[in-house]
Formats: sequence, C-alpha cells, structure tokens
Amino acid sequence: MAYQSHIRIRFGDEDHAGIVYYPRFFDFFHRVLEDFFNDNGHAYQQVLDVEHVGWPSVHAEADFRAPIRFGDVLDMDMWVERMGRSSVTMAYRGRARGQDVIVGRVISACIDLRTFKAQPIPDKYRAFFERFRDPPPDWIDTTGSPH
Amino acid sequence: MAYQSHIRIRFGDEDHAGIVYYPRFFDFFHRVLEDFFNDNGHAYQQVLDVEHVGWPSVHAEADFRAPIRFGDVLDMDMWVERMGRSSVTMAYRGRARGQDVIVGRVISACIDLRTFKAQPIPDKYRAFFERFRDPPPDWIDTTGSPH
Amino acid sequence: MAYQSHIRIRFGDEDHAGIVYYPRFFDFFHRVLEDFFNDNGHAYQQVLDVEHVGWPSVHAEADFRAPIRFGDVLDMDMWVERMGRSSVTMAYRGRARGQDVIVGRVISACIDLRTFKAQPIPDKYRAFFERFRDPPPDWIDTTGSPH
Amino acid sequence: MAYQSHIRIRFGDEDHAGIVYYPRFFDFFHRVLEDFFNDNGHAYQQVLDVEHVGWPSVHAEADFRAPIRFGDVLDMDMWVERMGRSSVTMAYRGRARGQDVIVGRVISACIDLRTFKAQPIPDKYRAFFERFRDPPPDWIDTTGSPH
Repeated sequence: MAYQSHIRIRFGDEDHAGIVYYPRFFDFFHRVLEDFFNDNGHAYQQVLDVEHVGWPSVHAEADFRAPIRFGDVLDMDMWVERMGRSSVTMAYRGRARGQDVIVGRVISACIDLRTFKAQPIPDKYRAFFERFRDPPPDWIDTTGSPH
Repeated sequence: MAYQSHIRIRFGDEDHAGIVYYPRFFDFFHRVLEDFFNDNGHAYQQVLDVEHVGWPSVHAEADFRAPIRFGDVLDMDMWVERMGRSSVTMAYRGRARGQDVIVGRVISACIDLRTFKAQPIPDKYRAFFERFRDPPPDWIDTTGSPH
Repeated sequence: MAYQSHIRIRFGDEDHAGIVYYPRFFDFFHRVLEDFFNDNGHAYQQVLDVEHVGWPSVHAEADFRAPIRFGDVLDMDMWVERMGRSSVTMAYRGRARGQDVIVGRVISACIDLRTFKAQPIPDKYRAFFERFRDPPPDWIDTTGSPH
Repeated sequence: MAYQSHIRIRFGDEDHAGIVYYPRFFDFFHRVLEDFFNDNGHAYQQVLDVEHVGWPSVHAEADFRAPIRFGDVLDMDMWVERMGRSSVTMAYRGRARGQDVIVGRVISACIDLRTFKAQPIPDKYRAFFERFRDPPPDWIDTTGSPH
C-alpha cells in the first residue's frame, strides 16, 4: 500500500531553465516522509524530539523523467521498499499531468538522536512500515549504469 | 584529473537534527558543476543562454557518509566518470575534517534548450570533459542494495 | 477581510539556532500570495504566463516577534493594506501557539511581464484586491527606527 | 567603513519570472553577516556555539531596486548603522553591473543562546561593530509609506 501526498510546485521552485531545480525533488521526498509519519499517528517532531528516534538519510537516488513547472501539482506515492534491522528504504514516485515525473528511493538509518548511533528499528515503527510495504518497483534502475 | 572546489556550510544549511539537510548536497553538486564550467573558460550562463546548450539532470544519487555542520568547509572533487553520445556522468566526492562526507554522481543529458530535445554533446564540451575524465570510483555502491 | 492560510514548518526550515531561518518567512509570504490568487479564481501561473501580469516585490519588511520551530503550524492572515495605481501593499500576520510570530508587508509593482515595465493594476485585480482591503495594522513599525 | 563581500547568483536562485527570487536576498544578507564575523577574527560558529552569543533577526527590510539574474555577481557592502544596548542594525547595499540592486537593513538582538534571553552586546563585539559603523544611508525609505 502506498501513502499518497501532493506537492504544489511553487513560483520559487524553478531554476534558470524554467523547470523545477532538481535538488528540490529531494526536499519534496522529505516533506512526504514527514507527512507520512504525521498522517499516520506518529507526529514526526515528537518521534525525533521526545522519542529521540532519528532517520538520517544514508543514500538517496532519483530518476528525473519529465520536467515539471510552476503551477503543476505533483501526486506523490511513497512506500516501504525494504526494511533491514536498522535501516529502511522508502520508494517515491511522482506524477503530474498523466506522466511520471520523478521516481526515487531514500535509505534512512535508524539512530538514537542522543548519540547519533544506529539502533534497531523500534517495533512500533517496524509494524507501521510493514503496513506500507510493497515490492521493489521495476522502474528504478538499480544497476547504476548511466543512460 | 578532478576539478576541485570548496563549499562553506552556512548557518541556514542545517535541519532540525543539527546537520546539513541532505537535499542541500545536491544543490552543492550543482554549484560545483557551475563553477567547473565557469572556471574552465565556459561561462555557464553563456553556455545556456547564448549557445542554448543545456544539461538537465536525468539521474542523481549520493551516499551520505558522515554528518557535516555549520562552520565546516566541504572540499569537493568532481570529475567525469562516463561520457555517452548525449549524456555525461559527473562524480562528486566531498571531504571535511579528514573524512568522506558525501559521494555521488549525477547524469546530465545534453539538450538544445530551445526545444528541450537531446542532442549530441558538442565537440568542444566533449574535449573539455575528456580532460577531467577519471575511472569510475570504487566508492559508489552501484548495486542499489540497501545498507 | 483577511485571506487565511496555513504553513506547516518543515524539518528543513530551521537554522543552526534551532528556529526557523528568518529568510524563509519571506518565502512563506510568497506562498501565501500564490494561494491567495489560486484560491480566489485567479490561477497565479495563468495570471503570469497567459495574462503576462507580474507582481515583482519592490519592498519587503517584517518583524520577527517569536521564534517558531519544526512541528509548528503558522496560521497566516494576509490582506491588502494599500493600493496605488500600479502597486499594491500586502500585509501579513502569522500566529502560532496563541501568539504573534511574524508580521510584515510586501509592496509589489504591477508590471507587464513581456517588457518588465510598470502598468496600472488591471480592473479585475483592483476589484479582487478591494475585497481583501483592510486598514493598515497598528503592529507594523513604520518609522524604520531600530528597536 | 563598509565590509565588502560578493555573492555569485546561482542557477537555482531564480524564480518563475527569471529573476532572483526575492526571499533569497535575505539569505544573501545572512551569508554576508556570517562572513563579516568570519573574516574579522570572530568565527561565527564559535561565537554561537562556544560563546553562546546569538544574533537573531528581529526586523528585516529591503528595497528591490533592479532585477538580477543567474550569471550576475552581487557586490555587497555591509555596515553598522546603529548600535543599541542589546541590538544592532546592519545596513546592506548590493550592486551589479553598475547599478543598485538591493538595499536593506536587518536588526539583530543580542541574546544568550542558552536561554534565548536578550543580553547587552559584549564589549568585544561592541568594539568590532564600532569599526564598521557608518551613518544611516539616505537610500532606505524609513517612512514605511508604499511607493
């Protein structure tokens, strides 16, 4: 099951070429991640500041399939592609005007924010992630070979 | 041969966890790319606006090896990892305080900015990129497997 | 009558001092401005790209009344404080957790985006702005004198 | 005496209108402020994290005099316009291609970062600021009246 969210492209999101500046897509990914926690009973700020459970990114990748511009709305799907003992891989897919715009994945470590040391994913987050687990999508090139 | 550049981490670059917000590293990559052109006789704004040669990112990936904070300076190496007919793969490595912070790669298509269509890399940029070509580094995990 | 909107403070909005990086408030102002047009029957992207009516900022100011952090939601009021022949002054007030966080104003010129020249505010926008006109608030220090 | 610095306008600094997105100018102001401390023997990260002396903005304002674009370099002057017991007003002026682009001021409170309470400006910073003190410029509209 995918978590669904929407990102409105803003006047300031474009670059000199008149399309969304590509680093912003990773910011979009993070905003979706925040809402994924927030909208499922785990206020992200509480997770971090009260429970001291942090999720720093250790790897991120994306394919930029089509340009997108101010005025567009990106319909985002996010799901859990893989769960390890102390890391989780989130997959993201964004579509606009009927076509794929962005696909990507981010691997987050699970850490204790008081020490910045890795820790096993707590059971309640393991159960939460399991609900949004889906097979690895076929659209991410996992070979690392350039186009 | 690697092109070398430096990025000063700013007061506003951090996130709620007190480390550089990971999407910024992709912004850093792009700033290094701009300077790579600028510092080698190809003013990037002219490349885009006068020659109409654009380099949109079609793929980006990075491993985040160590956290970095306000007050640090990131020493960046950038080189050409692979060149295709109409795409080029740039590799990036950033170090601070004696250790790897960030490694990544970005694949850019070569397009005609008037049409947004792919075009062969012009000969002068092919020669330019060739000067900064180095073998693929061994530090990028190309398998896509989570940690 | 004030237009009302909400801004969720994001993980990446903070600075090294652990509060919202102050330049972001001006980004928030602009996002509210975009939604003000969008939510009132004037899709902002169409206003700019189809009608070629632009609203560049010529002056911006703000008082930062209280720090705000990740996890907070900013309740924004925006209204038209003054309308000139070819400029409009928008006032902004943001509150969170029961107190004022930010107050400010932005003066926008009305221009023809094809020439970047000032033009009179078109009648339909004059009528639109009039609906959201309210007296100058007493909370903005208009003397320019430092605290 | 003004402190001088330079800001290179980046590919990602523009907005949908093809000019620098106005909130970025306030980010530029802050970067100049950081360098003002750094380049004068007061490493800003140390000031904040070791001395616990913070300078949150309580007011910011700017006039945007001319558009500026990717490829431009902004030559920034910054000086101390006014010093109070526990606040300081910095003035900024940025020029490019022979004309004024941006003028503004930011008022910062001096606080103890461990308590976020105002404190008198420490003597060494008082002396530092005094060296860069200049009369209020005549270019800032201090009346708050719209154009």
